Formats: sequence, structure tokens, C-alpha cells
Amino acid sequence: MADTLHFEDWSCPLPLRNYPRIVLGHGGGGKLSEELIENLFLPAFRNPALENLGDASVVELPPGRVALTTDSFVVRPLVFPGGSIGELAVNGTVNDLAMCGARPLYLTAGFILEEGLELSLLAHVVERMAEAARSAGVQIVAGDTKVVEKGHGDGLFINTAGVGVVSPGLVLGPSSARAGDKVIISGTLGDHGVAVMSVRAGLQFETTIQSDCAALHGLAAEILQVDGAVHVMRDPTRGGLAATLNEIARASRVGVMLQESAIPVDPQVQAACELLGLDPLQVANEGKLVAIVEGGRAPEVLLRMRAHPLGRRAAIVGEITADRPGLVAARTTMGAIRAIPLPLGEQLPRIC
Amino acid sequence: MADTLHFEDWSCPLPLRNYPRIVLGHGGGGKLSEELIENLFLPAFRNPALENLGDASVVELPPGRVALTTDSFVVRPLVFPGGSIGELAVNGTVNDLAMCGARPLYLTAGFILEEGLELSLLAHVVERMAEAARSAGVQIVAGDTKVVEKGHGDGLFINTAGVGVVSPGLVLGPSSARAGDKVIISGTLGDHGVAVMSVRAGLQFETTIQSDCAALHGLAAEILQVDGAVHVMRDPTRGGLAATLNEIARASRVGVMLQESAIPVDPQVQAACELLGLDPLQVANEGKLVAIVEGGRAPEVLLRMRAHPLGRRAAIVGEITADRPGLVAARTTMGAIRAIPLPLGEQLPRIC
Repeated sequence: MADTLHFEDWSCPLPLRNYPRIVLGHGGGGKLSEELIENLFLPAFRNPALENLGDASVVELPPGRVALTTDSFVVRPLVFPGGSIGELAVNGTVNDLAMCGARPLYLTAGFILEEGLELSLLAHVVERMAEAARSAGVQIVAGDTKVVEKGHGDGLFINTAGVGVVSPGLVLGPSSARAGDKVIISGTLGDHGVAVMSVRAGLQFETTIQSDCAALHGLAAEILQVDGAVHVMRDPTRGGLAATLNEIARASRVGVMLQESAIPVDPQVQAACELLGLDPLQVANEGKLVAIVEGGRAPEVLLRMRAHPLGRRAAIVGEITADRPGLVAARTTMGAIRAIPLPLGEQLPRIC
Repeated sequence: MADTLHFEDWSCPLPLRNYPRIVLGHGGGGKLSEELIENLFLPAFRNPALENLGDASVVELPPGRVALTTDSFVVRPLVFPGGSIGELAVNGTVNDLAMCGARPLYLTAGFILEEGLELSLLAHVVERMAEAARSAGVQIVAGDTKVVEKGHGDGLFINTAGVGVVSPGLVLGPSSARAGDKVIISGTLGDHGVAVMSVRAGLQFETTIQSDCAALHGLAAEILQVDGAVHVMRDPTRGGLAATLNEIARASRVGVMLQESAIPVDPQVQAACELLGLDPLQVANEGKLVAIVEGGRAPEVLLRMRAHPLGRRAAIVGEITADRPGLVAARTTMGAIRAIPLPLGEQLPRIC
């Protein structure tokens, strides 16, 4: 059969409209931009606000205080075990809203595409975003697409911004931790970072670890039911639990003492971290929350967390102290105490 | 003096903290990220919501409908005659809100930095953003910074998302144009595109043309005072007036007939466009608006526009017709009629 022409294997870069990759014109605001929006973005994200296609979308918000947040996503590779940049972009922003006690409602999405990006890969990511948005109950109501020349970007960067409403009277913030509070984490640490590293070009190890990427608004709402018990909620993404607790310790002028033996880490993640010289406390998570909770009500919060699918491996891992304000430390399994400083940079660049 | 050591001219790349360029660690969520935020972003954007430094910012919104929008900015070069990516990023999003009749209130800002970017250039752009925000009366309440490796970005990309409130009862949208309406533009076309092109590497012409980059919410509010007269407002950015009018013609199922002789174009912009083979109707503007206005009240709207500093060269340039729905045409100075199609892509990539 080697002498047979296989027309289905033959592709022609012209006409441009059927070219399977992004070209500069897709970011030009003309016919190609319009086709990309109408054939790819609109069908995936469809909702009345977006379909208006004006310069901005007009939506209704329930009365009350509003939470706003933004995050850009530059993870490499774009698809990894357990997810893609698409789910990250939706869940990351949903989680930032949820961590300040807001009910996430609307997202905006900005895409920076590199010339040459495969349209099929873009379509996959956009479909994953749409699914994540549906599953988190948020609508993507405004979007923007820019294209940069080949070699001036890296495939695909996504920015999402989010809007949510905050219940009256609810105040959560990094400065609300008090001595005697307990530190609860909702599950194993380091899964996302290790899942991404396991497939990054040049690294020669493989695990079955999946990213923990998930929307945490349901779990957050669940523990906020324990009225007034939760003082601080954060999702330990870049810089891991170490960065998050250091920020809380400084903002609240308290100390944090962790029990290393109580911190849940998957054995495969532990092994990968040892191989790579990483500290699981510094590795990024994308579906975990840390809650600083009034000491006496920590058991009740823990029970509620464990009853939620995203909190089954939740654990009390330490407590807030009046001494050593601004510092985080851990009692090791050997009984020694080690400092957990704010990391200088990032052990794993482009993890989200 | 050649034998004297000039210590002020001597620089050492270590310690890293004094290195004058962005390193990957600035995006890591650790100490370097914190320093960048505390020394560069916070002092420029300072406001109570941002200083909380939580995952999201909580703000108050007046009751009513809310407009949401987002735009990413990838303009090259980062600084050009009359502005920089900083002013563009603020004014572009302020304008998208203003064009749907919203009062702009809050912005978020996401930065994607390329390793090696000069900190002084970033500081300049951030300072310009802060000034643009102050002058437009908006607060930048949430931000995010990511860093990508050298060669995987292009210096600096900025995404802004914006939130504004819309007056009760006000409905502006691309589908509200009616036959008999007049087309008014607020000033000369093409200034931004030509200003950016005039300094782009490889092009050998120079003009004194400045970008028209400006926040249009004041001008928009002014013409909305003529109660119910304005049916559609848009800012003709990428794709220029041609793209904007084609979108309106399609969405409203009407025709548009322009008078070429009535369209204000600066003679230097006209000359540059002829040299480069560009159509000023397709070149991006960053401080102009096009309003589709009820015919009988167009003179009143025009007068108000001309009384505003950003509308001094406003002109009625055409009208909405019932015939040729979906099509835009222009009567040339010679009396012929030429079609003004939706551009396919962009004549000038990375103009905003």
C-alpha cells in the first residue's frame, strides 16, 4: 500500500481557514477572531451574558459585599496527569474567591495564544474550562484573545478574574489567626506539584500521582457552617503550606507549630520529593485548603471536612502559638524542632 | 580620571535581591514575590482592599446591575509615543466598561513577566498604570504575578479585568442601532496604531503622532446625559472603525453608509497609512468612541461631545440604513461607493 496516496494524511496550509493552528490574525479583532469566538469559545462557554458580545457583559449580582480576584496561569506542560491549564484556570480563581468566604458567580477569561498553537489543543483546554465552570456553578461571562508571534509566548497563557458574593458579617483574612487556634489541612500535600513535575520534559521518573486540582467552594461552605469557628482559610498553591502559613503568621503576629507526623503526604509524593530534593511543605497544591480554626471547635470542623469528598484525608496538623510571632516551625518525627521559613523563590517554576 | 574606580558604575549580580532584572523566583509565591509586591506593586496601587493581601479582595458595590470585562495587553514595544502598556491596560478596560454605560469602579491586574525584564521598566509601567487608574477614578484591588523563562514570553504581558455599575434602565448593546440613526465618532482615527508602528523595530519612518490612549468614561457619561439618544457605544480598537461598524451592522441587522470626507484623520496619520498601505478605518484607536445616535438628537450629542476635551474633533460621519443589512459602505470623496468589509485579521499585530 506504500504506493497509494492517502488523502486523509495530506494537509495543505491553505486556505488559511482550515489551517489547524493559531495564526496572528486570530488575535486581530477581524473575521478570524470572530470565527474563533463563534466556533470555539461561544459553544463551550455559552451563556446569555457572553452571547451579547459587547465590550463588557452586564450581569445581576445579589446585594452584599463582593469579592474580586485574578490569577494568570502559565503551567507547563499544558496538560498533565489529572488536569490541564483549563481546569487550573477555573478552579484556581474559584478557590481564591471561596477562601475569603465568597460564593463564586462569574469569571472572565483572557487567552494569550502563541502563533502555531494547535487548535485541537486549544479546543481541549477550553472544553475542560467549560466543564470545570459548569461543575463549580460559575459562568464565564467575558473573554479576550490575543495572539503573539511564534517564539514570543509559550503555547497558551490564561488569565481568569472572578467575582463572588460574601455573606453579610463574614470576615476571613490572613490576620485573624489567634493563639490556641488549630491548623487543619483538607488532605495530602504536594500532589499537584509532583504530578506536573512527573511529566515535565527532561525528568526521568514517573508516578501515578494525579494533580489534586479541584474547586473548593463546596468544602469551604461546609466548614463555614460551624458558625464563627473558622478564622482564616487559604489554599496553599505556589510556595505550598510553608508560604501560606508564613503569610498567616506574619499577618496575624502569631507563631505556628506543626506536627510533622500529622501532615498527610502520599507515599509516592514523599518518594518523588526525596528523589528531587523537594520539601512537600513547599510544593504547590491546587485542591487543598488550610483552615485556622478556634481550638475548641476544631474537632467539629474536622468531622465536617472529612464527610466531604474533598476532605476525606483532612487532619489537624498544628496549632497557633503566642510565642515566636511571625515564625513557623515543625516538630519532626524525631522530636526535634525545625524552622519552616518562607521559601525564597519557587522550587518548581511554572507549576500553575 | 581614567584610573579612578567609579563604584557607582560598578554592579554585581549578587546578592540576587539587588539584581536589576526579573528572575524566576519573583513568580514563586515566596520571599522574592513578596518583595516585588511590597516594594513595587503595593506602593503604586495602594488601597485598603489590596493591602489585605488575601486570596481575593472584598469590596462594596452600589446596588444595581454590574458590568464585567477583561482584556489582555501584548503591545510591542512596551513604551511608545503617548503611552505604554500600563496606560493601555487600565484605559482599555475602563473603556470597555464605559462603552456599555457602566461607571468603572474596580480593576484586577495580572502580570506575566519574562525572566530578564528590567525592574526599572516594570516599575515605569506600573507607575503609569497607577496614574491612569487614579485619573480614571478606579482602584486596582487584586493582582497576580507570574514569571516565565527567558524566551518563553515577551518582556511583559498584562491582563486587566474590570467591574463597573450600570444605571438602572440603561441598555446599550451592538444590536440597538436603528435605521435613521447617525454615526458619530469622537475624533481622529488611527493615531494609536500609527504611533506604535512608528517606533516598531525595522520600520524606517518617524512621525510626531502620539497614541490617543485615554479613558473615555467621562465622555461617555457626558453623551448619555442626552436621555435615550445613544443607542450603541463602542471603542474602535483592534480592527478599527471598520470592524466595530461591521459588528454593529450584523448585530442590529442594519446597513451603515459612511461619508469618507467627514471622517477626521490627522494628515500625518493619513500620510503614514499611505506609506504603509494601511486603511485608517482599519487601524486601532485607544481613546476614541463611536456612538450610534437617534437621528434627530445627533446634533445635540455632537455638541456635547465637542465640548469635552476628548471629543473636540467629533464628527457625524454616516448613518444607519434599512437597506443592505449587515453591510458597511462608504461614499468616497470621488462620489463612488466602496464596501468596508470586516477585516480578515489584523494589519498591525500586537497593537494593544
